[in-house]
Amino acid sequence: MSPTDAQNLAVQRIEYAEAEQQTPCRPVKARQAEIEEDVLQRVIRSFDGCADPRLKRVMVSLVEHLHAFLRDVRLTEEEWGEAIKFLTAVGHITDDKRQEFILLSDTLGASMQTIAINNEAYKDATESTVWGPFFVEGSPEIQNGEDMSFGAAGQPCWVEGTVTDTEGNRLPGARIEVWEADADGLYDVQYADGRVAARAHLFADENGAYRFWGGTPTPYPIPYDGPVGKMLQAVGRSPYRASHLHFMVTAPGCRRLVTHIFVAGDDLLDKDSVFGVKESLIKDFVEQSAGTPTPDGRVVEGTWTRTRFDIVLAPTGS
Amino acid sequence: MSPTDAQNLAVQRIEYAEAEQQTPCRPVKARQAEIEEDVLQRVIRSFDGCADPRLKRVMVSLVEHLHAFLRDVRLTEEEWGEAIKFLTAVGHITDDKRQEFILLSDTLGASMQTIAINNEAYKDATESTVWGPFFVEGSPEIQNGEDMSFGAAGQPCWVEGTVTDTEGNRLPGARIEVWEADADGLYDVQYADGRVAARAHLFADENGAYRFWGGTPTPYPIPYDGPVGKMLQAVGRSPYRASHLHFMVTAPGCRRLVTHIFVAGDDLLDKDSVFGVKESLIKDFVEQSAGTPTPDGRVVEGTWTRTRFDIVLAPTGS
Repeated sequence: MSPTDAQNLAVQRIEYAEAEQQTPCRPVKARQAEIEEDVLQRVIRSFDGCADPRLKRVMVSLVEHLHAFLRDVRLTEEEWGEAIKFLTAVGHITDDKRQEFILLSDTLGASMQTIAINNEAYKDATESTVWGPFFVEGSPEIQNGEDMSFGAAGQPCWVEGTVTDTEGNRLPGARIEVWEADADGLYDVQYADGRVAARAHLFADENGAYRFWGGTPTPYPIPYDGPVGKMLQAVGRSPYRASHLHFMVTAPGCRRLVTHIFVAGDDLLDKDSVFGVKESLIKDFVEQSAGTPTPDGRVVEGTWTRTRFDIVLAPTGS
Repeated sequence: MSPTDAQNLAVQRIEYAEAEQQTPCRPVKARQAEIEEDVLQRVIRSFDGCADPRLKRVMVSLVEHLHAFLRDVRLTEEEWGEAIKFLTAVGHITDDKRQEFILLSDTLGASMQTIAINNEAYKDATESTVWGPFFVEGSPEIQNGEDMSFGAAGQPCWVEGTVTDTEGNRLPGARIEVWEADADGLYDVQYADGRVAARAHLFADENGAYRFWGGTPTPYPIPYDGPVGKMLQAVGRSPYRASHLHFMVTAPGCRRLVTHIFVAGDDLLDKDSVFGVKESLIKDFVEQSAGTPTPDGRVVEGTWTRTRFDIVLAPTGS
């Protein structure tokens, strides 16, 4: 970086800060900017001997963005110390059951961005969203029309739809995995007694259609008793997730879809703590008054809801 | 971001990748770029309610740079998973004695950059460098000319110099804290028996001069049996630090100086694992043959070295 470039950079930085109505940083002098640039360039050169070109590219980009962050905010030594303490606490609360680093990635939007990058928009294929930490392998199989809640508390919800490819072809036999929290905001893996509930898989019928009973989704907070919860509180953010029902859908020749559907009208749609909501994934969950006949003749006590989710899978490699 | 901006960005990205002679990323389509930008903007807006303007600024900048990194390298979901595993391992090896997050910060140059940002170049003030993890409070006091090694193994080294401000005024009474590894590359805090060695503090004399015996610095590796060591190995980097002697110097009205001096001719000067070396901190450690009279008449068996380090302190608030 030439001294002139560095001066321009310093000027830009002040203008940016003023535009943002924040206290402007003291301008960085040309000599100082050169010293900081030299630190960065030495770090970049340290990866010259990396034999794996992909790893080299990732590490070099990582240090470029990391150093740009440190320089942009003029991170103080005290703030650096707080960051080390925060990461240490995130590490120490993390164990086999609690993954605070994933929570951190989720709440900084890094998980959702990685999903977006790896599941590119393709024609009218259904959009993907975050995995969440509550998926487990080995769910029970149900037949079309059966109940995936297995006794989990909640208002019954009839879910139906089709699975097609982006050319409009129905996909009989597509595998549909569904999981959700109960009315208390808990997934079965959070139950003390280890029972399986509110998770199942089923297969689209010969017409590529599917239907099942589940529970109407309700909002719940991500675990907020750890350092990530403290971070959210410090910045004035809620730990709550918008109400949702998880889907993972697979079919031969198609890209695996991991997504949720969200409930239209939910207050939390625009402040989901992990940024999972996409407009196209918000569905009407239409409440039915007590006594309304159900699609399959099931007798439901009290109210229930119904929703429709037509799933479109992108081709493999799209 | 407009579709045209996004297309330009995609074109730039290809050109950049080709210039770097790496496999070019597939260009990011305009619609896809809009989706990714939307994720970022939603994350940024989530900090709108942050009451602390500094925290808000740091968090917004952090997510901007984090998302730019994810998008630049098109991080795969598998790589994201590896990153979560790596950070989890860093968290789990960290305890009261081992701070792997600091090691990570050090080896990515983030510690050195933070030091650079917070200790800006000022006239001919001595440059600062990384703290390192081995400083401890409460070192023994020595008088000028005494030995700070306290029995630590190593070739004796006579260190002398002056402490002045940037106007050239001598600073009698300046406090000089020194610490270093022994000839086996260990600091006393790494000894099993808890003894104190190779660390001390002394004060500049009435002429602002100081002198003491220590050990000639030798190279040593940072702890490399953990995840950071594995990272260094994967990218083809050595865990070794260039030979050095730590100083922390304080005087009323002056900015605290934390620095090292390095040994001219050391092979590791251009590949110090934590990027601590600065040209101005490299000093001649002149080897003296056995029997050469010492400055203070001390009888040394075998060879010894001598070096000079004149320290210049910047004013407080500079």
